[in-house]
Amino acid sequence: MSENCLFCGIVAGTIPSEQVASNDRAIAFMDINPATRGHLLVIPREHATDLRESAPEDLIAATLLAQSMVSRVIDRLDADGANLLSCIGAAAWQSVFHTHLHVIPRYLDDPLKLPWQPSSGDMDSIAATAQELR
Amino acid sequence: MSENCLFCGIVAGTIPSEQVASNDRAIAFMDINPATRGHLLVIPREHATDLRESAPEDLIAATLLAQSMVSRVIDRLDADGANLLSCIGAAAWQSVFHTHLHVIPRYLDDPLKLPWQPSSGDMDSIAATAQELR
Repeated sequence: MSENCLFCGIVAGTIPSEQVASNDRAIAFMDINPATRGHLLVIPREHATDLRESAPEDLIAATLLAQSMVSRVIDRLDADGANLLSCIGAAAWQSVFHTHLHVIPRYLDDPLKLPWQPSSGDMDSIAATAQELR
Repeated sequence: MSENCLFCGIVAGTIPSEQVASNDRAIAFMDINPATRGHLLVIPREHATDLRESAPEDLIAATLLAQSMVSRVIDRLDADGANLLSCIGAAAWQSVFHTHLHVIPRYLDDPLKLPWQPSSGDMDSIAATAQELR
């Protein structure tokens, strides 16, 4: 755990999140600035600055959890596809420096371009979507 | 192997590519329509339509190879970061239907937005970059 790390706080439960799924080394929770409906983040529980620094077993656990989340958003939210995205370094749009994988549901003709402009989502709507995904 | 699959042809060697690295279940080669200098694709050798359909051992092998490629583009090409991206479904910009992970080197203030507009790269320059990455 790294002090002052937002995602370590989410892992520890000291910062609230809408958690959707987990395994022994990783958790999946809702992005509160969703690029599209159902946008999830998957993170290893163990702190590392970015994907380069994560131990193989942590990256594997996060990837397999992300794989199952991709299937779930397509099945449960009627998404037409999904993007898996990781940002390594500020030059690559990383803003929280704890390894994370974005799972971004995609809908036919959605207007998504990356980087998206983060803006706060509606928390009730995010909580309802989390419930659909659990 | 799936007939008429471009990436299966690359795995089999019947379609040429600038291969950079491999492990027992995955290979990394240059994207010929690079979004930025050094853009690589990492694919499982085994055919699957997209990341959802790949067996865990294939996805793990591809992910670990991609992780090492992220470090390599940053170390060897002086990139300032990288994005790891997978597209699942046409709605998510997938155009070749064999599981693949993009490793896109990022450079401070590069103008990249996703989706990029694919255009053919200069093959001599791509081959030279591949050599730097091997």
